[in-house]
Amino acid sequence: MPSTETIRGRVADYLTAVGAGRPADIAALYAPDATVEDPVGAEIRSGLSAIEEFYGALDGVDRDTELISLRVAGDTAAFHFRVTTRTADQVIVVEPIDVMTFDADARITSMRAIWSSDDLSIESRAAGADHE
Amino acid sequence: MPSTETIRGRVADYLTAVGAGRPADIAALYAPDATVEDPVGAEIRSGLSAIEEFYGALDGVDRDTELISLRVAGDTAAFHFRVTTRTADQVIVVEPIDVMTFDADARITSMRAIWSSDDLSIESRAAGADHE
Repeated sequence: MPSTETIRGRVADYLTAVGAGRPADIAALYAPDATVEDPVGAEIRSGLSAIEEFYGALDGVDRDTELISLRVAGDTAAFHFRVTTRTADQVIVVEPIDVMTFDADARITSMRAIWSSDDLSIESRAAGADHE
Repeated sequence: MPSTETIRGRVADYLTAVGAGRPADIAALYAPDATVEDPVGAEIRSGLSAIEEFYGALDGVDRDTELISLRVAGDTAAFHFRVTTRTADQVIVVEPIDVMTFDADARITSMRAIWSSDDLSIESRAAGADHE
């Protein structure tokens, strides 16, 4: 089982990769037979090609991520984080709690994202409201 | 499947019951065949008598709980919360992220608590430091 520090590092790597938005880099953090359920209750995606396809929606999108809180126990991490996505006319913020398990090589074996549309905030980007 | 609002209410009920510290009241929120893994990686306790015994450690202890953040998706809730326990000479604070699933009657079917001793803060209760 990877150490708590190793798992913390992998969660940081994941948030960096999601922020950068390159699906192949995100998928590379997963074990070959990993599963993704995002949000919980949605179709479970299994295996690297399905996972890379899932993250394909992020490709080239202007977004960043910020860790709010992280807890680790055994092979499992739970973390609350913020994803901010900027389109031409909107800023979309969602703050899920994700639960991940890891294998002995610290690859993600499962990810379950707990959030709903209630947790989504969408703001129009009025003139002068560009924060970046 | 219970509604998001119902699940939110059950999480609030759980935190109230944990704060009040009555093991039977806490166990009554669980389904008969429920499981508790606290923290993740520890022995899994199964069934109401094992669950009531687990919470028995809280009986009569001065503690309160505070919800920090809560997310719900499908039948699953994840929530970050603070438990503050006051003994004669210490104040112990832990802020786990718990993941719970619920059945159609909104009874808890599983609870997994993600935290470690890294997430525990212990302060001596110096004279005059009693916050309540």
